[in-house]
Amino acid sequence: MQRTPRIDNLQYANWSEKIFRQMREGGVDAVHVTIAYHENFRETVLNFEQWNRWFEQYPDLIMKGQWASDVQVAQDTGRTAIFFGFQNPSPIEDDIGLVEIVHSLGARFMQLTYNNQSLLATGCYEDEDSGITRMGKQVIKEMNRVGLVIDMSHSGDRSTIEAADISERPIAITHANPYEWCPALRNKKDDVIRAVTQNGGMLGFSVYPHHLKDKSDCTLESFCEMIARTAEKFGPDRLGIGTDLCQDHPDSVVEWMRVGRWSKQIDYGEGSAAAPGFPPMPYWFEDNRDFDNIENGLKAAGFSPEEAAGIMGGNWHRFYAENFGPK
Amino acid sequence: MQRTPRIDNLQYANWSEKIFRQMREGGVDAVHVTIAYHENFRETVLNFEQWNRWFEQYPDLIMKGQWASDVQVAQDTGRTAIFFGFQNPSPIEDDIGLVEIVHSLGARFMQLTYNNQSLLATGCYEDEDSGITRMGKQVIKEMNRVGLVIDMSHSGDRSTIEAADISERPIAITHANPYEWCPALRNKKDDVIRAVTQNGGMLGFSVYPHHLKDKSDCTLESFCEMIARTAEKFGPDRLGIGTDLCQDHPDSVVEWMRVGRWSKQIDYGEGSAAAPGFPPMPYWFEDNRDFDNIENGLKAAGFSPEEAAGIMGGNWHRFYAENFGPK
Repeated sequence: MQRTPRIDNLQYANWSEKIFRQMREGGVDAVHVTIAYHENFRETVLNFEQWNRWFEQYPDLIMKGQWASDVQVAQDTGRTAIFFGFQNPSPIEDDIGLVEIVHSLGARFMQLTYNNQSLLATGCYEDEDSGITRMGKQVIKEMNRVGLVIDMSHSGDRSTIEAADISERPIAITHANPYEWCPALRNKKDDVIRAVTQNGGMLGFSVYPHHLKDKSDCTLESFCEMIARTAEKFGPDRLGIGTDLCQDHPDSVVEWMRVGRWSKQIDYGEGSAAAPGFPPMPYWFEDNRDFDNIENGLKAAGFSPEEAAGIMGGNWHRFYAENFGPK
Repeated sequence: MQRTPRIDNLQYANWSEKIFRQMREGGVDAVHVTIAYHENFRETVLNFEQWNRWFEQYPDLIMKGQWASDVQVAQDTGRTAIFFGFQNPSPIEDDIGLVEIVHSLGARFMQLTYNNQSLLATGCYEDEDSGITRMGKQVIKEMNRVGLVIDMSHSGDRSTIEAADISERPIAITHANPYEWCPALRNKKDDVIRAVTQNGGMLGFSVYPHHLKDKSDCTLESFCEMIARTAEKFGPDRLGIGTDLCQDHPDSVVEWMRVGRWSKQIDYGEGSAAAPGFPPMPYWFEDNRDFDNIENGLKAAGFSPEEAAGIMGGNWHRFYAENFGPK
């Protein structure tokens, strides 16, 4: 019988052989990696090209992931399947035809917004959330048609709830935590999580310190206890992991993530002038080798081995199988 | 037992429901269609997008073709599988990484040149053919790796022979005829055809009048007799059809094909100032409904039913199976 796969549904690292080897050491069968923050279509294609080079260079460590079945292929061959996603709709520019094009190239998740207002919806940092736009409604329909998953991790509450309602297929919050546990702008209130999960959508828990109670000092116990409380409310089957691991990047990269080309002024996002860079990770999750810590923590928090395995990847795997292609 | 598929390995029509229905009436199981003459990458992507719209609009008539097995799917479902190709390497611009990207999007043939010198090789209209360029050698290797077929229909003789030698997989002349039968600049001398076919490559016979003996007045008998002579020299298994059907286009399109953006002066290519437009097709092949004429003509010229079926599509189908993906 095939072991339940271990999946991290959000990472954005400074990719290297070292990190790919750590994925193997951590028994990670699949990772959803971000390949666009503010890139336009052509720039995003360059990022697909860069990954093609890595697949050529490290064929024993990683492989391109397109379908749920690729997670099994990766398991069977001792590799990690890499699935692509965008944290912003910038890659499709103003062209709805690009939705199918980026799906053909392998994109499987796309956020409708990244903090700011986009052509499609409102980001969580805007003062006013005006909901899904005219183009947004069309793009949601097209994403549903081809099997590109709507990710609302960085969107405003109203936009997220509207997206969950408008979408005819489950959507995702790939990397965020409950606002109740840690009231950060990026974390999600119960009604938002409910709107997403009640339609078969998924919530991936983030380990990015700005999303954690006590930030870098957050304990594993607190994190897993929070997951247990969330499972009580929304069921353990709609939950997974999306660590938001941003390993080995210089701080200039977090500036690009926050500011892109949209402002001449620095915007610190979740950071501050006093702490503008990437925050240090909690001691119990520094890189891909630490997933056992989380799985053990979940069991200590009361989850059965099956439930814990589901949260560690089984649930994302089922979600992949249902949502990565035409219905 | 599955009927040998009927494949036309080159068309560039003004696509419409009418033409898709004619494909069905003509029992055409697969067509390799040109989607770029001078388009850059982004413009080519718009052409992929246009085809995606047609696949959505006419799901009962056509389907996207990516693999040889799709030809069988098309047969089983009564549709025509559409395979994509470029008549110029303009879609990959100066970026070798785009070779795999366009393959992921579905491109299966790419000419290294279209009449003129390109970044990769020399076209058949240049005075000097300097052979495969430095970038050309790298791109051939990359096309071999991913399974994008090298098409030399519009290339110079030296470039074609060099490409056949350098390429580690079979290449193709998708649409041209022997120079011996009709000494047009676009037709191919025996040593060129030999270089291509002796390594498992294919020659597709063109019905475009400028490539025919007596042009629009060419008889079916003369055309099929020419195929019989070519089969005697190079074997019947390396031969197929690539009609170069350019149906329903206004003459402005042939001007775009010939001049693109590379000249401010008109260039008549195979035409002339007196006859600048598309030439009239021969009476025995006006559109997709006329493939029976060719198949019957082949039998009348002495081919066995099996050999005729191979030339009408079986040979291309085998070539597709061997060359449309990584080895």
